[in-house]
Amino acid sequence: MRVAVAMFGFGNVGRFFAETISQKREILADRYGLEIVLTCVTDTTGAAVSAQGLDPGVLLDAKRSDGGAAYCPQYGQPGIDPRSALANARADIVVEATPTNMTTGEPGLSNIKLALSSGMHVATASKGALVLAYSELMQLAKERGLALKFAAAVASPLPTIELADFALQGCEIKSIDAILNATSNCILRSMETGAGTFEEALKDAQRRGVAEANPRLDVEGWDTSGKLVILTNALMGKVSLNEVERRGVDTVTPEMVKEARAEGKSIKLLGTARRVNGHLELRVVPVAVPPEHPLFAVNGIQKGISIDTDLAGRLTVIDGGAGPLATAQCVLRDVVNIARFHMR
Amino acid sequence: MRVAVAMFGFGNVGRFFAETISQKREILADRYGLEIVLTCVTDTTGAAVSAQGLDPGVLLDAKRSDGGAAYCPQYGQPGIDPRSALANARADIVVEATPTNMTTGEPGLSNIKLALSSGMHVATASKGALVLAYSELMQLAKERGLALKFAAAVASPLPTIELADFALQGCEIKSIDAILNATSNCILRSMETGAGTFEEALKDAQRRGVAEANPRLDVEGWDTSGKLVILTNALMGKVSLNEVERRGVDTVTPEMVKEARAEGKSIKLLGTARRVNGHLELRVVPVAVPPEHPLFAVNGIQKGISIDTDLAGRLTVIDGGAGPLATAQCVLRDVVNIARFHMR
Repeated sequence: MRVAVAMFGFGNVGRFFAETISQKREILADRYGLEIVLTCVTDTTGAAVSAQGLDPGVLLDAKRSDGGAAYCPQYGQPGIDPRSALANARADIVVEATPTNMTTGEPGLSNIKLALSSGMHVATASKGALVLAYSELMQLAKERGLALKFAAAVASPLPTIELADFALQGCEIKSIDAILNATSNCILRSMETGAGTFEEALKDAQRRGVAEANPRLDVEGWDTSGKLVILTNALMGKVSLNEVERRGVDTVTPEMVKEARAEGKSIKLLGTARRVNGHLELRVVPVAVPPEHPLFAVNGIQKGISIDTDLAGRLTVIDGGAGPLATAQCVLRDVVNIARFHMR
Repeated sequence: MRVAVAMFGFGNVGRFFAETISQKREILADRYGLEIVLTCVTDTTGAAVSAQGLDPGVLLDAKRSDGGAAYCPQYGQPGIDPRSALANARADIVVEATPTNMTTGEPGLSNIKLALSSGMHVATASKGALVLAYSELMQLAKERGLALKFAAAVASPLPTIELADFALQGCEIKSIDAILNATSNCILRSMETGAGTFEEALKDAQRRGVAEANPRLDVEGWDTSGKLVILTNALMGKVSLNEVERRGVDTVTPEMVKEARAEGKSIKLLGTARRVNGHLELRVVPVAVPPEHPLFAVNGIQKGISIDTDLAGRLTVIDGGAGPLATAQCVLRDVVNIARFHMR
C-alpha cells in the first residue's frame, strides 16, 4: 500500500524522518507492505510539493546546501503557506514536526486542525497543541474518523501510548511515575556528581548543548508537566496544565542533593499522576528517590516511565538516552500504525 | 463483536483468565467493542462445552467445589478429548494454557496444531511447543491465515513482542539482554543478601513456594533458554534451543557472589542474543553486572528485557514482579489483539 505523507517542519526530526523512510524502504515494504512517500515538506522557506512523491535525497540536499525545502529543484515553492501546500499534496497522513510552543500551541495547533479538517490522519512530534487542546483535537479526529497519534511528542522513544494501546488490554492504570525531561535530569546528575549549584550545572549543560539558551521550559518543569498532561489525558483521564503542582530543578540546592546522597537516594524531577478519591492528582516536583524506586537508575539524557496497573502490576520502561533519530522513529511508528490500523 | 474462546487448561492462569473476562466485561465492550465468551474449557477431568457460552462464575465454582471443568452443571463432559470438545465449541480463538513441557512440547504442541488446523487463531501461555517448533507452528498459522500469539509465554507481563510489533517499526534489533526466570533471580538475590550457598538458597525458595519441587528447568537455565529462543525467533531470526550456551544459577558459588558485591556488582542469570559476524549468538549464563547495566535493579521475582535497536536506541522494560493474574492479562492482550487486528 502506498502511503502519502505531508510533513510540516523540516528540522532535525523531519530530516531524520526523510532519511529513515528512504533507508528503510525495503524493511517497510517487507514487514508492513508499505511504501511511504513524502508528497509535501514545509519549512520556514516555503515548501516542496509533489503529489507523485519527492525524492528524500534531493530534499535533504536542498535543505543542506540551499537552506530549505522551497529550494528543492522542480518542486520547491518559496513562501507558499501550509494550506496551499497541503491542498496539492494529496496526503493520507500529515506529520507535524514544527518547533513546539506551549503557550500558543502554534504553529502545530493550526497545522493539526488544518490536516484533520482536510481529512488527513495526523502524527505529531510537537506537544504544544496537545497540551493546550488535547480533548478538542481528539474530538475533532474522532468526528472525522481520523487517527491523531503522538508517540514522538511524549518522551520519545518510550513506548508509552503503545504500551496502553497494545499491551495493557483490560487494565486500569492506577498511577504514572515518570522522568520526562532530559535537560533537568542531566542537570541533576551533574549536581550529584559535581556537587555544584543549579546555576553552575545549568551553565555546564548549556555549554554541552544539553540545555537551551532559554532553559525555562525545561528547568521550571513546564516541559515535564506538558508531557505528563498529555500522557494522563491519553492513559487515565481528562486533565489540564493548570492542575499540575509544579516545581522545577531550579529549586534544587546542593544541600538537598548532598542530603539525598547521604541516604543513598537520588533526586529526580518526577512527574506523577495518581487517582486520589476519584480525581486525578498531578505533580511535577524534585523527589529524592531510593534505590528500590523503579526510576532510580534513569540518569543523564535517559527518560523513564513507570505505570502501575490492576491486572499486570507495574511496568517500567527506560530508554538508553536518545536524540532526534529516535524521535523520527516514533513518527515512523505512528505513520506505520496509522497505515496498518486506520487506512485498510 | 462477539469473540468465542475455547481454553485448553484450567489451572491458575486459566482461572484468572475466566475471572478477568467476567470482571472486565464492561471495559472490554467500551474500549474495544468486544464481548469475549468462553465456549469450551478443558482440564484433566474433561471439558465444559457450550457454543452459546459458559458462565465463568459457574465454571469457577465447578473447578473450586467439584474439582474440574467436567463437573460444570449442564455443560460438563467428563473424559471428553480436546478434539471432540473443540469440535462443538465453535470458537474463534483457542487459548492454550496447559502446563508446559520443554522436552515434548505436549500437550501444547498437539493442542496448537489442532486449533490451527481447525481454522482457529491461537493465544498460548505455554512455551514448550514454541521452543521446540516455533518455525513450524508459525508457518502453519501463516498458511491458514491465522494468528498465533504468545505474550503470556515469554516473561509475562513484559510487553516484548508488542514492543517489536507496535513500537519498533523500521528498527533492526541488534541485541537482547534479559532476565527471564523469577526462580533463578530470587535464588541469586537470596544468596546476595544471605550470603549462603546455592543449595541453601534453593531450599529457602522451595519453602517460600518460589521454586518448584523439581527446580532443574529453572535453576539450570532451561526456562530462560527456552524463553530466549522464542524471543530471538520472534525478534531477530531463526534459532533453536541447542544453540544456546547455557549455565544455570546452580553453578554460582558464595565466593562469586561475594566477589561481585565487593565490586558493587550483582550476579544475574542473563539471557543474551547478539548478532555476531552475521549469525546469532545465544547465551544464558550468570553474569556479574555493574550498577549502570540496564537490568542491574531487576531483583527477586521481577523480570526485565533490554533491547538495543538501530533507530530508537536501547529500550528496557522491567516488571514489578507478577503472578498468574498478570499472565492471564497477557492472554487477554493476545485475545483482544487477535480480535482487533485479525478478525475484522
